[in-house]
Amino acid sequence: MSVRVDWRQAVAFTGTVIKYLAVAMLIPLAVSIVYGDDILTFLASIVITVAVGVALERLDDDPELGPREALLLVALSWGAVAIIGAIPYVIAGYGTESTLRHPINALFESTSGFTTTGATVLGEISLDRHSHAILMWRQLSQWLGGMGIIVLMVAILPEAAVNGAQLIDSEAPGPELQKLTPKIAETARLLWLFYLGFTVLLMALLVALHYAGLAPNMNVYNAIAHGFSTLPTGGFSPQSESIAAFSPAVQWVIIPFILVAGTNFALFFFLLRDEYAAVLEDREFQVYLGANAGLALILWGLLFTGSAPPLDIGGATQGALENSLRQATFQIASLLNSTGYATSDFAQWGDTAKVVLLLAMFIGGSAGSTGGGIKIVRWLVVFKGIRRQLFTTAHPSAVKPVRLGGTVIDEDVVQAIYGFTMLYILVFGLATVLLALDAGRVGLEITVLEAASASLATIGNIGPGFGFLGPFGSYLDFPSTSKLLMIFLMWFGRLEIIPVFVIFTGAFWNE
Amino acid sequence: MSVRVDWRQAVAFTGTVIKYLAVAMLIPLAVSIVYGDDILTFLASIVITVAVGVALERLDDDPELGPREALLLVALSWGAVAIIGAIPYVIAGYGTESTLRHPINALFESTSGFTTTGATVLGEISLDRHSHAILMWRQLSQWLGGMGIIVLMVAILPEAAVNGAQLIDSEAPGPELQKLTPKIAETARLLWLFYLGFTVLLMALLVALHYAGLAPNMNVYNAIAHGFSTLPTGGFSPQSESIAAFSPAVQWVIIPFILVAGTNFALFFFLLRDEYAAVLEDREFQVYLGANAGLALILWGLLFTGSAPPLDIGGATQGALENSLRQATFQIASLLNSTGYATSDFAQWGDTAKVVLLLAMFIGGSAGSTGGGIKIVRWLVVFKGIRRQLFTTAHPSAVKPVRLGGTVIDEDVVQAIYGFTMLYILVFGLATVLLALDAGRVGLEITVLEAASASLATIGNIGPGFGFLGPFGSYLDFPSTSKLLMIFLMWFGRLEIIPVFVIFTGAFWNE
Ligand SMILES: [K+]
Ligand SMILES: [K+]
Repeated sequence: MSVRVDWRQAVAFTGTVIKYLAVAMLIPLAVSIVYGDDILTFLASIVITVAVGVALERLDDDPELGPREALLLVALSWGAVAIIGAIPYVIAGYGTESTLRHPINALFESTSGFTTTGATVLGEISLDRHSHAILMWRQLSQWLGGMGIIVLMVAILPEAAVNGAQLIDSEAPGPELQKLTPKIAETARLLWLFYLGFTVLLMALLVALHYAGLAPNMNVYNAIAHGFSTLPTGGFSPQSESIAAFSPAVQWVIIPFILVAGTNFALFFFLLRDEYAAVLEDREFQVYLGANAGLALILWGLLFTGSAPPLDIGGATQGALENSLRQATFQIASLLNSTGYATSDFAQWGDTAKVVLLLAMFIGGSAGSTGGGIKIVRWLVVFKGIRRQLFTTAHPSAVKPVRLGGTVIDEDVVQAIYGFTMLYILVFGLATVLLALDAGRVGLEITVLEAASASLATIGNIGPGFGFLGPFGSYLDFPSTSKLLMIFLMWFGRLEIIPVFVIFTGAFWNE
Repeated sequence: MSVRVDWRQAVAFTGTVIKYLAVAMLIPLAVSIVYGDDILTFLASIVITVAVGVALERLDDDPELGPREALLLVALSWGAVAIIGAIPYVIAGYGTESTLRHPINALFESTSGFTTTGATVLGEISLDRHSHAILMWRQLSQWLGGMGIIVLMVAILPEAAVNGAQLIDSEAPGPELQKLTPKIAETARLLWLFYLGFTVLLMALLVALHYAGLAPNMNVYNAIAHGFSTLPTGGFSPQSESIAAFSPAVQWVIIPFILVAGTNFALFFFLLRDEYAAVLEDREFQVYLGANAGLALILWGLLFTGSAPPLDIGGATQGALENSLRQATFQIASLLNSTGYATSDFAQWGDTAKVVLLLAMFIGGSAGSTGGGIKIVRWLVVFKGIRRQLFTTAHPSAVKPVRLGGTVIDEDVVQAIYGFTMLYILVFGLATVLLALDAGRVGLEITVLEAASASLATIGNIGPGFGFLGPFGSYLDFPSTSKLLMIFLMWFGRLEIIPVFVIFTGAFWNE
């Protein structure tokens, strides 16, 4: 292990990541050509991206990363990609009324994309105001972000032993990360294949629905766009009304894909090998499905009985049973695993329903998924840790390990998970206070719920909140300082906080 | 250590505690006589109390408590005392319009008293509707609850090694609790003397202010009443407008006593021995004062500049500087350490100010004080644990203990504190959801902020919340099921959760 952090290695590797981003920009370039939009935006962006990538890459010939360099790479690459990814927004917005012509707005939107958050500062989401290519770039940024998350989860966090991420891949070889081992690279490649496969399948189904006459608005463009933002639990949409713009058939079809996006992708290995028992016995998967079902049932009850003002969803409305069940199932699935799609403006629902949605927003996806938030496996370890504490309070001399699915969890891992969860909650709380104070400073009227949901929806990479930042609203009205804070929150949250926090400590840079 | 829990021992000891309660009831009996109110209420209550106490005491001749019996005693005695303490409310309310004639309301008020919470379900707090004796009994119940907390903190929790309470008294002999050792009994007695001394001093000062003409409403009755509810961080008042009913002079005089109530009482030993350095170097004390000063400054800024609608507090109002400084200092001190007194209806303040108040409410008092909530020493350990985690993420092979004021904190204690803090936050969140659902069930309109603040104000033993349960409002409108839940929350919160939770586990009752 090197004595000092070799930042040149990390920066050079970041350069490579940026070079690949230029390749991805060929897709919106193609969209520009197809729709006859201006092609200069993405041509210019590609030139800049390649230039920056190549320049950075030259800093080190053959980067081999140690654990600290890997952490630095993670933090740097998400930051750099978000900055580079904002360039097309600024170029396209130049000389127009687009809110993204302002660099901070562009960076917010780009960070929100690559961190799969889905919070937007686009004033008006419409193909009349923005080109097909720009709106597709937003969608694609989420899909690329999701791909990055898979590498992060499989290859980097477990190797660097961050936040008890060892749990995710118990076969990880050790604390040293010299280079991607063939086995880890293989795992990542397989998970990518699942990710790609589900994406293509969803796009195909949506197109099929369209040509079957069941989804009038779901043309090929929209099918590709929403395919890009579903599997990464992204939540962006080129429609200002999100998934509410589409037919019930589309909404029902998207629900299982949202659920898949929050599932541990490793479980699909077992499915491929017909080992269904292994899937059904997975503790985290059980809790994931159970939480989705339980909360959806409660919300269904609230919507259908009208206990929460239902806005023509429940009660005596025609089709109320199907409508309220669909809305409840969709919205819980979407918020629980941090997707953030909406089939209704839930910011207008009653406060009892909002509390249920907030509860869902605190849960998060499964380990090994693209879902954000605290994540179910961590909640499981926290619950088991507390149960153990109750036991040892009654029996002080007893020694009892924390177990998950039969395996003993190392005490260091238990403590790391407690630490992560507390830090997440603390950052959420502190950011709520800062957002409220900053709003007070500029005279922006903000409620406690709006401030808290802005904080939660950005650090949890969820996207929409309540009030003016609801699913049909935007983050545009926040002052720039708040937007910068939320850019940090999205970055912290997506990278599991610790890898970002740690690079701001002196201890990281010293021997 | 006994193999099974000897519940008879714990119940017998509870009987003794109840017997002492009958002695305390002589005070409201005396008040009845002085004011010519009906004396039957407290005479009858005393008879019942003695009868119950003696009957329970007979279950065991010479109770000697082991650790589990001590935990059971703690949970039982607070529960039993709250039930017995509700008897006078029911008797006095019989045949009247008093809301306390309903047993659940009476139990709520009594639990709120003995847990030093200060949340009320009295519809109209007024000496026209309630006797002097009954309103004094509310105040006294808080003072008695505070006395109980001191024993709990000094003698029971550290001995039973609950929640890392060992931190509070590092000289605690060991995990066995056979009987109060002379040393522990001595410590408890000294802390009681401080408690009594500060109480008497406050009463004397308030009376002096009255006779000096600086506090027209602060007659002897009010001076005694508020003396009873300040040192235990109680927050009840026989005035419907809490401390806003009194002059600025009274408010300024009460502030330092609120601050004292949230300070580790052990620090006063050092003051007595002129060891000022030991007090000033106490990490928790520094953070306690710092948090009070910092948040008060922020709130002062908000109130004075009118960023938070200030209701004739700040801005161009005459005396605005003094007024806003007083309100800010008082309200932060009162909510940070869980007292709950109010000098203004802060539920009407702007949301930015509310967020600052909410932050204060999450902090809690110092260890070794009567303050509730998570408590500062635990936050310190959590912060240091997270800092250590950042360090070991950068340096995986490093071994670094968590230190507090130079002393190494045992890893078990660190984990116990993480566990407590997480459990506190989880119970708070879950109770918020339940309160919102229960309100939805009966059609009570409740906002997310009202539900969350009801949960926080009861589990944190703070008292008032926001909205209809603000400092000038009451908890009366909640359905009975919600009131029962909040009775449990006050009980959990005051007894540091774990001792109550643990008696509901099977492991507690088995060998
Ligand atoms: K999202
Ligand atoms: K209180």
